[in-house]
Amino acid sequence: MAETVIRADDDLTTVINVFEVEAAKQGELVSVLTEGADKVVRHRPGFVSANILASRDGTRVVNYAQWRSAADLEAILTDPAVQEYGKKAAALGKPAPSVYSVVSVFTAS
Amino acid sequence: MAETVIRADDDLTTVINVFEVEAAKQGELVSVLTEGADKVVRHRPGFVSANILASRDGTRVVNYAQWRSAADLEAILTDPAVQEYGKKAAALGKPAPSVYSVVSVFTAS
Repeated sequence: MAETVIRADDDLTTVINVFEVEAAKQGELVSVLTEGADKVVRHRPGFVSANILASRDGTRVVNYAQWRSAADLEAILTDPAVQEYGKKAAALGKPAPSVYSVVSVFTAS
Repeated sequence: MAETVIRADDDLTTVINVFEVEAAKQGELVSVLTEGADKVVRHRPGFVSANILASRDGTRVVNYAQWRSAADLEAILTDPAVQEYGKKAAALGKPAPSVYSVVSVFTAS
C-alpha cells in the first residue's frame, strides 16, 4: 500500500490545496482529484505523492501533494491534462492552494 | 529523525489547521506551534504526529496533526495547556481547522 512520508527539511515542494465544497458534492470532488492523481499527475516528472483527504463535516477536501522541486511543480501547472482536471475540480469546489516547506515534525515516541 | 506516514484508510483522525498570517509574523507563529507541539501536544494520549509547514509566500502556516482517535482529539481541545498555545497562535494568525479522513494516497513508482 502507498505510504507518504513527511520529514522536516525534506527539501520537497509541498502543495496543500484546501477546497471549500458543498457537502453534497464532496464525494464527486474526491473522485475527480483521485482520478486526476491516478491517471495524470502521478506519471509526471518529479511527482512524489498526492494525498486526498475528506473533511468529516463534508465541507472541505484537501489535496496534500509533494514534488521533487519547485520546477517540477511549475511544469505541471501548465500541463493541459493537469489543467483539465483542475478545471473539473474547480467546478465542484473553491480551491485555495499554497506552496509550503516542512519546518518541523513531531511523532509519538 | 521523526517521520510522519500518511496512508489511505489509516483509521487516524487528521486535523489540518491552515493559519492566515502576516508575513512579518510567520516565523513567530511557526515558533509558537513548534513549541506547543514539543512541550505539550506530543505528550498527550493518542498523539500520533504534528507537522508544521510554512508557506513560501509567507502568508500561511499549516499544522497537519494525526491523532489515534476522535476521542483523543476531543480531549486535547479542552486541555488548558493546549488551549494556552492555541490562544498564542490565534493572536498571531487566523486559524481554520478541519477534521479529515485520508481517502487516497498515490506515491511515485
